[in-house]
Amino acid sequence: MTLAHGRRYLAIPGPSTMPDRVLAAMHRAAPNIYAGELPEMVGTLWPDLRRLAGTSGHVALYIANGHGAWEAANMNLFSRGDRALVLATGRFGIAWAESVKPLGVTVEMLDFGTASPVDPARVEQALRADRQHGIKAVLVTHVDTASSVRNDIPAIRAAIDAAGHPALLAVDCIASMGCDPFHMDDWGVDVVVSASQKGLMVPPGLGVLWISDRAMERCRDSDLRTPYWNWTPRATASEFWQHWAGTAPTHHLFALRESLTMIAEEGLPAVWARHAALAQTVWAAVEAWGEGHPDIALNVADPAHRGHAVTALRLGPAPNATRLRDWTEQKAGVTLGIGLGMAAPDDPAWHGFLRVAHMGHVNAHMTLGALAVMQAGLIALDIPHGLGALEAAARVVARLA
Amino acid sequence: MTLAHGRRYLAIPGPSTMPDRVLAAMHRAAPNIYAGELPEMVGTLWPDLRRLAGTSGHVALYIANGHGAWEAANMNLFSRGDRALVLATGRFGIAWAESVKPLGVTVEMLDFGTASPVDPARVEQALRADRQHGIKAVLVTHVDTASSVRNDIPAIRAAIDAAGHPALLAVDCIASMGCDPFHMDDWGVDVVVSASQKGLMVPPGLGVLWISDRAMERCRDSDLRTPYWNWTPRATASEFWQHWAGTAPTHHLFALRESLTMIAEEGLPAVWARHAALAQTVWAAVEAWGEGHPDIALNVADPAHRGHAVTALRLGPAPNATRLRDWTEQKAGVTLGIGLGMAAPDDPAWHGFLRVAHMGHVNAHMTLGALAVMQAGLIALDIPHGLGALEAAARVVARLA
Amino acid sequence: MTLAHGRRYLAIPGPSTMPDRVLAAMHRAAPNIYAGELPEMVGTLWPDLRRLAGTSGHVALYIANGHGAWEAANMNLFSRGDRALVLATGRFGIAWAESVKPLGVTVEMLDFGTASPVDPARVEQALRADRQHGIKAVLVTHVDTASSVRNDIPAIRAAIDAAGHPALLAVDCIASMGCDPFHMDDWGVDVVVSASQKGLMVPPGLGVLWISDRAMERCRDSDLRTPYWNWTPRATASEFWQHWAGTAPTHHLFALRESLTMIAEEGLPAVWARHAALAQTVWAAVEAWGEGHPDIALNVADPAHRGHAVTALRLGPAPNATRLRDWTEQKAGVTLGIGLGMAAPDDPAWHGFLRVAHMGHVNAHMTLGALAVMQAGLIALDIPHGLGALEAAARVVARLA
Amino acid sequence: MTLAHGRRYLAIPGPSTMPDRVLAAMHRAAPNIYAGELPEMVGTLWPDLRRLAGTSGHVALYIANGHGAWEAANMNLFSRGDRALVLATGRFGIAWAESVKPLGVTVEMLDFGTASPVDPARVEQALRADRQHGIKAVLVTHVDTASSVRNDIPAIRAAIDAAGHPALLAVDCIASMGCDPFHMDDWGVDVVVSASQKGLMVPPGLGVLWISDRAMERCRDSDLRTPYWNWTPRATASEFWQHWAGTAPTHHLFALRESLTMIAEEGLPAVWARHAALAQTVWAAVEAWGEGHPDIALNVADPAHRGHAVTALRLGPAPNATRLRDWTEQKAGVTLGIGLGMAAPDDPAWHGFLRVAHMGHVNAHMTLGALAVMQAGLIALDIPHGLGALEAAARVVARLA
Repeated sequence: MTLAHGRRYLAIPGPSTMPDRVLAAMHRAAPNIYAGELPEMVGTLWPDLRRLAGTSGHVALYIANGHGAWEAANMNLFSRGDRALVLATGRFGIAWAESVKPLGVTVEMLDFGTASPVDPARVEQALRADRQHGIKAVLVTHVDTASSVRNDIPAIRAAIDAAGHPALLAVDCIASMGCDPFHMDDWGVDVVVSASQKGLMVPPGLGVLWISDRAMERCRDSDLRTPYWNWTPRATASEFWQHWAGTAPTHHLFALRESLTMIAEEGLPAVWARHAALAQTVWAAVEAWGEGHPDIALNVADPAHRGHAVTALRLGPAPNATRLRDWTEQKAGVTLGIGLGMAAPDDPAWHGFLRVAHMGHVNAHMTLGALAVMQAGLIALDIPHGLGALEAAARVVARLA
Repeated sequence: MTLAHGRRYLAIPGPSTMPDRVLAAMHRAAPNIYAGELPEMVGTLWPDLRRLAGTSGHVALYIANGHGAWEAANMNLFSRGDRALVLATGRFGIAWAESVKPLGVTVEMLDFGTASPVDPARVEQALRADRQHGIKAVLVTHVDTASSVRNDIPAIRAAIDAAGHPALLAVDCIASMGCDPFHMDDWGVDVVVSASQKGLMVPPGLGVLWISDRAMERCRDSDLRTPYWNWTPRATASEFWQHWAGTAPTHHLFALRESLTMIAEEGLPAVWARHAALAQTVWAAVEAWGEGHPDIALNVADPAHRGHAVTALRLGPAPNATRLRDWTEQKAGVTLGIGLGMAAPDDPAWHGFLRVAHMGHVNAHMTLGALAVMQAGLIALDIPHGLGALEAAARVVARLA
Repeated sequence: MTLAHGRRYLAIPGPSTMPDRVLAAMHRAAPNIYAGELPEMVGTLWPDLRRLAGTSGHVALYIANGHGAWEAANMNLFSRGDRALVLATGRFGIAWAESVKPLGVTVEMLDFGTASPVDPARVEQALRADRQHGIKAVLVTHVDTASSVRNDIPAIRAAIDAAGHPALLAVDCIASMGCDPFHMDDWGVDVVVSASQKGLMVPPGLGVLWISDRAMERCRDSDLRTPYWNWTPRATASEFWQHWAGTAPTHHLFALRESLTMIAEEGLPAVWARHAALAQTVWAAVEAWGEGHPDIALNVADPAHRGHAVTALRLGPAPNATRLRDWTEQKAGVTLGIGLGMAAPDDPAWHGFLRVAHMGHVNAHMTLGALAVMQAGLIALDIPHGLGALEAAARVVARLA
Repeated sequence: MTLAHGRRYLAIPGPSTMPDRVLAAMHRAAPNIYAGELPEMVGTLWPDLRRLAGTSGHVALYIANGHGAWEAANMNLFSRGDRALVLATGRFGIAWAESVKPLGVTVEMLDFGTASPVDPARVEQALRADRQHGIKAVLVTHVDTASSVRNDIPAIRAAIDAAGHPALLAVDCIASMGCDPFHMDDWGVDVVVSASQKGLMVPPGLGVLWISDRAMERCRDSDLRTPYWNWTPRATASEFWQHWAGTAPTHHLFALRESLTMIAEEGLPAVWARHAALAQTVWAAVEAWGEGHPDIALNVADPAHRGHAVTALRLGPAPNATRLRDWTEQKAGVTLGIGLGMAAPDDPAWHGFLRVAHMGHVNAHMTLGALAVMQAGLIALDIPHGLGALEAAARVVARLA
C-alpha cells in the first residue's frame, strides 16, 4: 500500500520544482538564432538579472551547471600561480576550493566546519598576514547548499577592507539567489556566481556570473581564460552569438525569461519574505520534533546564520534519516534531500542527516505538506520525536502569511 | 504578504488535479480520425472502461459534461410519459431529477435530505406501491458530490428485487468512479453514468455511460432518443465515427487512455484503498477540529455512508467557511470547494459550509498539505477549533500508508 | 525507404493543424470553475465570437462535436411535427437532414447534387409552395465539407424574402467559419452552427451556435428542447455554470481563447484573404494536373462556388486517389482527406476522390509542400497528369503573398 | 498581405526542428538527481550514443554548445606548447583553429577554401614535414556547417598513416552526426565532437565527445585539463554526478533519450538514407534554378563532397539571397539560413549567399515545401532563374522515397 500516487513533491535542494509556466516556455519550436524574437527577448534579460543580484555591473550567462559557473569564475579571476583564499562553511565551499586547485592556483583555506558561519576576524587576520597581497580573491558561499549555513557577506567585505587588502570578493549564490536577500553593489561584492536550477526555477543548464567593473578591470589579463569561459565577450558582446560563445541555449533562455517575469510579478522583496517565512516554518517543526529528542536538530543553531532556501538537519540516530527519506518517497510522494558533507557516504553516520529544500516555486501548501508527511513517517517508523511540530509550523504560517 | 506563490493545489470536487502525464497526452498534433493511431488506440479503451465499472456490459462515450451524461441516460431510459423514481441524498440527486422532468417524464422523488443515505425500505415501499410497474427506472447517486453521502447500491438493488419490480437501476457515479469501489454487474446496476473530470483525472468534456444488456434491450424503443444521445450506435458502432456521432474528441481520448493506464499501473484496488485512506485522513482532522467545537463537523455522521472522493463539512458559524476558503486560496495556495446544497447561495448560512476534495491524482502530501493549510487558516482567522488535528491526520497516514 | 519521418502534415478537413499556442494553452492545471481566472477569461470570449460571425446576436457554446451542434440547433429550432426545408449540396447537407428527421420533424429536401451550389430560384419556388408557412426553418451548409461547394447565403436569404416566407435561415458554417467571409447580420442569417476543430484550430469538442434575436424569440417554445440543448440559459446565463449546463469545458475554453487571440492578431480579413490565396494555390495545381487528363479535376467547376477551407477533387481513375493518399502518408508525411459522399464507400469508384484541406493554421509552406508531395506521388505511381502544377501553384503564392 | 501564418518552418542549419516528442520529453517535473528514474535512464544513453558514432570507445557529455564541445576536445587533446594541424574547409574549420590558439597551442592551418574538401595528399605532406612529430592532433570538420563541404575522413586517416605520423585525428561532426554516415572505429578516428541541436534534434545545450582508447591514453596528462572539461571522470564516472561535473542537465537528458529512441525506431541507416535523399532533392532544385543562370549555384560542385544536412548556395547577384530570405520568412513562413564565411558580413557580396538546412526531423513535405516557397519567392521578386526546379525536386523524391 502506498499513498504516494499523485503529484510528487521534490524537496531536494536543486533542481527545485519547475513552475508550469517555465516548462511551458520551453515547450516551443526552435527560434532563429540570428534575428527576431530570440535576440529581442534576450535584451530584456539583462536588466532583470542585474536587479536580481542588486548590481549595475556586468552579467555573463554560461551554458553550464553550477560547477561550470565556478570554473567560469575561476578561469577569469586567476592566472596560473595566483593565490585564492577560500572560506568554507560546508561541502560546497570545499568543492569550490577543489575546483580551483587543479588550475595551478594556490588555495589557502579557512574551514569553519559545517555548522558555523565564517568568522570575519579570521578572514581579516589571514589577509593581514598576506603582506605581499598575493591573494587575488576571496571565495565564499553565501549559503552552502550542503550545510545550509548562511554567511554574512557585508561583514566579510568589511574584514577585507579592514585588512586593507585589495583581494576581490567572489560569492557563490547558487543556493541563495532569488531566495535570500542579496545586494551585490551595496555589499561590495566583485563576482557573484549562480545557476538556474534553484531559486531561478529553471532546469539545470545555465550558469550566471555577475561581475563588478573592478573585477572586469583586474581580471583583464588572467592567463587561464579560454574562449569558452572568458567573460568579457559574454558580458559585452557586440554580436549576439558572442554572449554564448556560439549557439544560444534557446529553450533555457525562454525559461529564464518566464522565471524572471514570475519573480517580477511577485516582487523580489515578497519572494525573499516568502522564503524567510517558509524557512521559519520548517525550523519550527524541526525544533518541536527535537524537543526532548536531541538526535533531531537543526544543523545551524543560530537562526541568523541559516539560509532561507534549504534546511539541513540531523535526524538520528542513523539510519533514521535515510529510513525517513525512503518512507516519505515511497509512501507519501515527497522526496527529501540527502545529507551532504556531514559524514562520508560510506560512514553509517551519513544516514543520520537529511535536508529539506524550500527554494523557488514553493508555497505554504507544499512546505506544510512536506512537514506533515515527515510527521507521518516519524510515527510510522516509530522514530522518537517531540510533539506539536505541525501545529507549531502552522502557527508560523498563520503569523507570517 | 502571501505564501501562495508556488504550485497551487485545487481541492475542489472536480475538476480534479490533472496529472502531468494526462496533460502531456493532450499536447500533441491532431490525428487522422479515419484510420491509424487514433482508432487503434480507442480499441484499447473499452476493456479498461469495463474493468473500471466492474461490468461486461456496454460502454458509450459522449462529448459532454456530467449534466450531458445525465441527459444521455435520460434520453435513452425514458419515453415521454414514463415515470422515474429518483432517490435524492444531496443537491446532485435533486438536479438529476430536474434534468428528467422537462423531458415529459413524471418524477417521483424520495428525498433523504443532505446528510443521510437512501433508506432501502422506503424504496421497496415506493416500488410496491407502483402496482402497474409504471416506474421505468430508479435513479440514484452513488456519492452525491454536494453532500458527500454515499449510498448502498446493493441494498437498493435488493429493495427493488424485494418489491418484485422490473424497474431499471441507474446510478450516477460522477463523483465516485475510480475513487470508491463499484461493481456494476455484481450489484445489479443497469446504467452507470460518469464523467471525465474527477476520479478519471481528465479535463471536463467526456461523459461515460455503462449499460447492461437488460437496459439496452428495454430501452430500444425509447422515443426520447435523438441521434446525438442514442446509445446504441455509440456502444455498438460498426464505423469509427458512430462511437461519437461524428468527429471523435481526439485529445480527450488520448488523455483518457493515459488516465486509464495510470489506474492500471497502480491497480484499481490500490486506487480505491488510497482514496479510502486519504478520506479517513481528512475525517480525522475535521473530527479533531470539531472536538468541543460543534460548529465544525463532518456532514455525514456515519463513516460507512461517506464517499471517499470528497468530504462535505460544516465550518461555522457562517461566514467562517468562506473566510477560511478565501484565506487558504490567497495566503497558502489551496482552493477549497464551496458548500453546495446545504443552504441557498443567498442565505448567509451558505458561508458556513465547504468541501475538501480528495479525488483522482492525489497523495498524502497533497492531502496533508491541504489540512495543514486549513489549520494555519483557522489559527490566522481566530476560528475556535479543537487541537491535534494534524497529528491525528498524520497518524492515519502513518497507519494506512 | 520512406521520407515521411519529420513533422507530419495532416491535410484532412478537420481536425486541422493545432497551433502550438493552442496546445500550450491546454497544457495547464485545472482551474477553479466557480470564480477567478476562468470565468473572467470566458467573459472575453463572447465579443470575439460575435465578431467572428459578424453578428450582434447571441452565442451559445456546447461541449459537443459538429453533429452535436446540429442537434443543438435542431432541438431549439423545431417542435415535434414542424417542417424543415433542407438545401443539400453534399454529404453534410444530407446528414444534417438525417439528424432532424428522427426528431419527428418533417424534412423537405432540395438536393443540388455534389458539385453545384443551391439554386435560389428553387428555394423561392419551394417556399412559395408552402402557403401555410409550415416550414419553420431552412437549413443549408455554407460550405459542405464533403463536396467543398460553397453556397451564396445572401442569395438564399433573398429567395426566402422574395417568397415572403417567415422561415428562419440556419446555416452550417462548420467547415467555413474563420476561413470564408461570413456576415451573419448583414446576410440575414438566424442561426449559425459551427465547431472548434476546423478554422478555429481547437481540438474537437466544442460546438458554437450564434442566434439572432428573431430566432431566440421564435423558438422560445420549441417542445424538443432539453436541459442540455436549450440555448436560452447558455446564451443568457446568470450563473457561470448555466453557460455549460454544468461543468465548464475548462481546457477547451483556454484553447479557444488562444485561437481567437491569434485570429485577432492576424486580423479576420487577413485570415480570410490567406485562405482565399491558399485555396487558389491548390486549385492552380489541380487544374494543371488535369490539363489533358480529365480524370483529374476539381469537384466544383466555378471558382465562385468553391469553399476556401477545403478542396474536393477527382483523382481517377479509381483507385488512384487512394493510392496517392497512401503514398503521401507513407512516403512523405502528408495525410490527405478521403473523398466523402461522391461514391459509396464500398463502390470501387470511391477510390477516385480525395480532399485537400487548407483550413485554419496553414501557410504557404504547408500548402505548397502538400502539393509538391502530391506531385512526387503522381510521378512515383505513374499516374498520368499534366505538367507545371507546382510552378503554377508557386505563381499564385508569388502573386498573392 | 502574408501567407506566413501557420506552422513556421525553420530551415537554418541548427537549431533544427525539434520533434514534438522531444519537446514533450522536456515538459516534465524535475527529477531527483541522486537516485531513481534519471540515473537509470542515463544508463541507456551510452550504448545508443556509441552506436550513433560507430564506436566501442568512450563517451562524454557536456552541458555546453558546439563551441564548448570544441573547447572540451581542445583542453583534453593538448598541453600548452603542443601543436595542432587544422584542416579548414569553411568558416567552422577556421573557428575551431581560433578556439585552440588562445590556449597556447601552436596551430598549423591547411586552408582548402570554402568549396573544396581537404586534399589528403597535402595532409600527408604536412605531416611528413613534421619529423619530430610535434603535431599532437589533426583537427578537421566532417561537414562544415558554413560551406556544406563534406570531407573524406577515411582518406585523411590514410594520409596520416601513410605519413607514419602518430597524430590523433579529431573530427567535428556537429553538422553531420545523425545525418551523414559516420564510422568512428572503422575510420580510425580518435575524437569526435558533436552537439545536440542539429541531427540530434535536441535544443542547444549538450555537447558530446566520443573518445578512442588511444586518445584517452595519449591525453591522460594534458596540462590544459580543468575540472569541468576533463573527459576522464565524465566518461568513466563512478558516481553519477561525475558524468556532469556537478548537477545533471536533467531536461536535456530526457530530450536526448527521446531523440535517440526516435533514431533507433527509424533505424540509423534509414535516417542516413533519408538525409541523402532530401539533400539530393534540394540539389536538384538549385541546379534547375541555376540552369542558364550562373548566379544561382550550389557551393560545392561535386556531389560526393557535399554534406547531407545542409546545402550552401550562391543566390546572386547580391542582395538577392537576402531578399529571398526576407520574403520567404515574411510571406510564406520559411526561415532560411544566412550564408556564412563566404563573404564578410559587411561586404555587400554577403547578401548573395544562403543555406538551406535539411537536418534531423525533416521529411519530404518540409523540404519540398521549403523549395516551393523559394520558387514562389524567386517569382515574386523577379529574380531570374531556370525553370522546372520543383518538378525536378519532386522527381527525386518520387525516385528515392
